[in-house]
Amino acid sequence: MGFETEGHLERERQIKLTISYVGTAYHGWQRQDGASTIQGVMEEALERLLKEKVSLLASGRTDAGVHALAQVACFRTSRTIPCEGIVKGLNSMLPEDISVLSAELVPPEFHPIASARAKRYCYQIVISPVRLPLFVNRAWRIGIPLDLAAMRQAAGHLVGTHDFSSFRAAGSSAQSSIRTLFKLDIDERPLEEYSEVHASLITITAEANGFLRYMVRNITGLLAEVGMGRLAPDTASAILEARNRQASSPTAPACGLYLTRVFYPPLP
Amino acid sequence: MGFETEGHLERERQIKLTISYVGTAYHGWQRQDGASTIQGVMEEALERLLKEKVSLLASGRTDAGVHALAQVACFRTSRTIPCEGIVKGLNSMLPEDISVLSAELVPPEFHPIASARAKRYCYQIVISPVRLPLFVNRAWRIGIPLDLAAMRQAAGHLVGTHDFSSFRAAGSSAQSSIRTLFKLDIDERPLEEYSEVHASLITITAEANGFLRYMVRNITGLLAEVGMGRLAPDTASAILEARNRQASSPTAPACGLYLTRVFYPPLP
Repeated sequence: MGFETEGHLERERQIKLTISYVGTAYHGWQRQDGASTIQGVMEEALERLLKEKVSLLASGRTDAGVHALAQVACFRTSRTIPCEGIVKGLNSMLPEDISVLSAELVPPEFHPIASARAKRYCYQIVISPVRLPLFVNRAWRIGIPLDLAAMRQAAGHLVGTHDFSSFRAAGSSAQSSIRTLFKLDIDERPLEEYSEVHASLITITAEANGFLRYMVRNITGLLAEVGMGRLAPDTASAILEARNRQASSPTAPACGLYLTRVFYPPLP
Repeated sequence: MGFETEGHLERERQIKLTISYVGTAYHGWQRQDGASTIQGVMEEALERLLKEKVSLLASGRTDAGVHALAQVACFRTSRTIPCEGIVKGLNSMLPEDISVLSAELVPPEFHPIASARAKRYCYQIVISPVRLPLFVNRAWRIGIPLDLAAMRQAAGHLVGTHDFSSFRAAGSSAQSSIRTLFKLDIDERPLEEYSEVHASLITITAEANGFLRYMVRNITGLLAEVGMGRLAPDTASAILEARNRQASSPTAPACGLYLTRVFYPPLP
């Protein structure tokens, strides 16, 4: 590519960061006046490190309380500090609940949203009759077992290319609500260590070419109602066709949601 | 047994609680003036619920920052509130990082320490070149991979009945330092979700008829040094024989330690 050798681009290098965070203490990704946000804390640390103002552009906003194993965000800088120094420098300044996993020089045409081919989210539900402190703020607790077969049947109706209007945040205004859901897997493992209670952890893994706001949490809300036997699995199909948020189930809480991966084509 | 039918015992029922907690915010189990402790918070909640002062006796103290999946503690009360009501009542008053999993009426001769046949602790080490926020305060982070085969070889020297003086807290004054370590297993699973870094989670599981103070953390400290190649696996044997805390490795941090189970003989 040679993008590093041209004068203009040497002055404006683009760096891609992969960031992990526990979202509990933050008002989501996006910078807001008077509220602590991941973007705000990250941009402050970058400014201290680089001695210049930078804007971070993420692969997407995560909402308040949502976690990330690997959020991706880019910035442009005139500084020539090596990527390794950016990781070490930022991590020495960031609070313990935010961390930079890697930094990488990317071509100027790389765009964290437009270049993304797919995203993966995981949603954790802990099944337990009582609160399990180690899962507080990390999973949605449901007090009764869920019917996984029914949930998987409902999930089958949602996989594919559909208008997901029924699963987007009320009042959200993305131009198109058509998305392709590649995968919607549901797994459960017993939490045998908790011998006093019948506890298990359900993980819902969703992969799509893009997600509408609250889409994973709204799908999870529906799957949970199916799992509890309140809705028949085939309802998923009718709700999808209704193209109306009112038709679906309540939104699952933010604390169970993890942005786990953003997929990009290999860099040239 | 008929222990519920005698007048005296009706007035003084003994209740066994199984308690789970995240230890991060507490100065350990044991009540201390002017410091927040699990025992202090639990006794306060019990007093509010039962309208009488009670003393909780635990299976053992956990140190500051140590977690429990299932700590066991007993109290005696003249109240006849059903066990289910104790669980619900306490959980409605306790903070989110402490929870009662179960309450059970036990015979007066049951003793949370003396009746225990064995205890199980788990110690979590997260291997990652950078901080992983979701594991902060939940695992000890080591930046380089560990040699599991060498660690297992060292662990083999420690299993059995030994004088564990080299692994007890300096200045600790338990009458005997002889314990039987039934099991010292080491497992590792890759954290594949963190695709940007080579990360894994190592779990050390220790089961013994009793543990000296800091024993699991001191054993973990030694195993980690063996895993890093700083000590030969056979050193474990020599350290054990030295019967001297000075002979062993530094203590592993509290945040990776979990009391996971206390084993009692079946109730009559």
